[in-house]
Amino acid sequence: MRLSRYFLPILKETPREAEIVSHRLMLRAGMIRQQGAGSFSWLPLGKRVLDKVCAIVREEQDRAGAQEILMPTIQSADLWIESGRYDDYGKEMLRITDRHERKMLFGPTNEEMVTDIFRSYVKSYKDLPLNLYHIQWKFRDEVRPRFGVMRSREFLMKDAYSFDLDYEGARAAYNRMFVAYLRTFARMGLQAIPMRADTGPIGGDLSHEFIILASTGESEVFCHKEFLDLKVPSADVNFGDDRQIAGIVETWTTPYAATDEMHDEAAWDAIPEAEKVSARGIEVGHIFHFGTKYSKPMNASVTGPDGKEHFVSMGSYGIGPSRLLAAIIEASHDENGIIWPQSVAPFDIGLINMKAGDGECDRVCEELYEKLQAAGKDVLYDDTDQRAGGKFATADLIGLPWQLIVGPRGVANGEVEIKNRATGERETMPLEAALNRLAANPAGTAA
Amino acid sequence: MRLSRYFLPILKETPREAEIVSHRLMLRAGMIRQQGAGSFSWLPLGKRVLDKVCAIVREEQDRAGAQEILMPTIQSADLWIESGRYDDYGKEMLRITDRHERKMLFGPTNEEMVTDIFRSYVKSYKDLPLNLYHIQWKFRDEVRPRFGVMRSREFLMKDAYSFDLDYEGARAAYNRMFVAYLRTFARMGLQAIPMRADTGPIGGDLSHEFIILASTGESEVFCHKEFLDLKVPSADVNFGDDRQIAGIVETWTTPYAATDEMHDEAAWDAIPEAEKVSARGIEVGHIFHFGTKYSKPMNASVTGPDGKEHFVSMGSYGIGPSRLLAAIIEASHDENGIIWPQSVAPFDIGLINMKAGDGECDRVCEELYEKLQAAGKDVLYDDTDQRAGGKFATADLIGLPWQLIVGPRGVANGEVEIKNRATGERETMPLEAALNRLAANPAGTAA
Repeated sequence: MRLSRYFLPILKETPREAEIVSHRLMLRAGMIRQQGAGSFSWLPLGKRVLDKVCAIVREEQDRAGAQEILMPTIQSADLWIESGRYDDYGKEMLRITDRHERKMLFGPTNEEMVTDIFRSYVKSYKDLPLNLYHIQWKFRDEVRPRFGVMRSREFLMKDAYSFDLDYEGARAAYNRMFVAYLRTFARMGLQAIPMRADTGPIGGDLSHEFIILASTGESEVFCHKEFLDLKVPSADVNFGDDRQIAGIVETWTTPYAATDEMHDEAAWDAIPEAEKVSARGIEVGHIFHFGTKYSKPMNASVTGPDGKEHFVSMGSYGIGPSRLLAAIIEASHDENGIIWPQSVAPFDIGLINMKAGDGECDRVCEELYEKLQAAGKDVLYDDTDQRAGGKFATADLIGLPWQLIVGPRGVANGEVEIKNRATGERETMPLEAALNRLAANPAGTAA
Repeated sequence: MRLSRYFLPILKETPREAEIVSHRLMLRAGMIRQQGAGSFSWLPLGKRVLDKVCAIVREEQDRAGAQEILMPTIQSADLWIESGRYDDYGKEMLRITDRHERKMLFGPTNEEMVTDIFRSYVKSYKDLPLNLYHIQWKFRDEVRPRFGVMRSREFLMKDAYSFDLDYEGARAAYNRMFVAYLRTFARMGLQAIPMRADTGPIGGDLSHEFIILASTGESEVFCHKEFLDLKVPSADVNFGDDRQIAGIVETWTTPYAATDEMHDEAAWDAIPEAEKVSARGIEVGHIFHFGTKYSKPMNASVTGPDGKEHFVSMGSYGIGPSRLLAAIIEASHDENGIIWPQSVAPFDIGLINMKAGDGECDRVCEELYEKLQAAGKDVLYDDTDQRAGGKFATADLIGLPWQLIVGPRGVANGEVEIKNRATGERETMPLEAALNRLAANPAGTAA
């Protein structure tokens, strides 16, 4: 993509309304635009990152055996009346009346609808386990939406729902999502730590929030430093092997980890001081087993191997890709701007022509632009007539993993410069060497 | 994907509520489920096709120079009051009040919001031309939603908006979308014919509906048979060359073509009888130049090369992917089910194990399944214990381009059978030959 033709409205001023760094940087880098209270448009740069985040979420859901569907944003109130949540949900639910005076709502979540889909088609335990997910816009009418897309009213959510014959099956389904979440966040360059969350009236221990450590985090968290060295399962983890998966979950739930809410001072005090990590955290995912909470009132049952009807045991598993994107920036930025992990970077390489209009610089840039694209790289080519200082500032602000800098002096020597955004390292090298370095660099290994 | 694990709720009965064939087939093939009046969930098979349709739409928008953004579904009423449409739009607009009593609405279209984005950032003619599109859910509260996803209340729409300094620029932008639409529909196996549409108070001739011919179409259309032989521009068409693009548009707008609404009996009578095509049609896209209709009231202007302020000249360009999917089925089915064009088929190949549980059949199927997937093919492997007749019926119903049939008698001879869903041709051949045939078959060439 040529920057001269790309809609990238960089802001020079730091927007006053933005309280946190991710919000500031997303506005300044032309990724989002506020459209109303807690409502944002995604501009081209932001949309590209959102797509990459969703693609990773999707791949890991699929790998773990979940199947993608897509439910509508608008729901009939009837299902919520059936589950008993229509009156309970309160003012966060955006209630709507259509032209025929039918009661509807903008879905804040989809337990009811997916349970309705399930009960319409699935009648036998033989069709289980089943896990259905979708990535769809949700709306929660928060009193004070803030922090940009970190806490907006309209937000994108991946919500998965598992259906099993019994608690044992549900626990295995829960474990698969647990492991899928570990992989999902790790692939985005995030250190996510699963922490026990409140299960309320459901009881049991099957509720975890995935928290990433970021100095700008919203809440205080406490964990054993062992977590920082735990290895995230590789792509060949066998989701068909319940024992293997349960083993991974055990490893990841054994050391102490708790949010402020669930913190146990006594257990914490028992940990040697040198092994404690007390930090700020941002919640990026939540998984929750709720048993028959919806299947019972909504009569979602299957015939078991015993010939009897069983209400299915369910769980739900949420990740907010729009929120996650902000969390990635909170965890990965410096004073000059965003530092994208390569796996979610909007482009792989920023090609900077320091003297657009200069015959040799233009020729070399065009050649690099074509060859890198031919090698499968996404390149943002700054072919504008801005001065070099402005181009460097923009490149650092939007945070592409690599900058490839072409100036008249270097070109005269057949050389260009490569800058690694994460480390700040710059290296001057012959054109061919730079090409080989950047074209060969496999996705996901840098930054 | 193994069918035994795939959520594909095939209906044996033809649903009574479905009036048209695409609606019936989508319900029967387990692609969609109705959630309320004019509201549908997309089940896994439907979601796959929807994704493929959107991917083609996106590729052709990008190729033509449009840039993808994503605007929220919920809009503030303020912008619509500014443009003057808030009161005019009538009952089709789903009006919403939030907890703070602010007036909002579920976007039925996005002219206002995109104009607001434009005016916030773009100040100079140097940043033009600009074309921004998004693919987002829209809601129109139709009195009588019907025909499944063909005319639903919540529907997916790709809407693009072009911004230019003057009419000449806007005309060139219009032409690029015109050509992009020709390519988009052709890639989905559709014969789409651009027909002049009413421009109302805007005037001029820059409004076209793209109509596909299908015997089950919603309206009568009239065109010269010359259209049926016109060649759709190839992928290397140069969108940077306004003259080349205008030439293509001229070719495609010269022969007579009109919807019932715009039909000119005198012009029609002048065409020799043998050259007339009178058929049923389904609208699948609409492009429209509306000049300064929104830029003027909303004050969206740029400084021109003359140093003066100019209200930008705009156009909008819509395709409904959810509707399009139904239109593809209307145009491509037989009495046994859907016949997917390869480019949008949910899977490339249906692998049918006629005797699951038979050691040799299972072994050969597993081998084919792995090898085809390794060759980059999407395979739906029917490994269920249903009887062969039911498997064939399902395969024909869901309409994958190729069926690969493995039975005990063939396997004993080292042979399998291939069936082309579109032509019905069956061919028995050695295993290796079948593999080579199906693995080599490039996407988009068959069916």
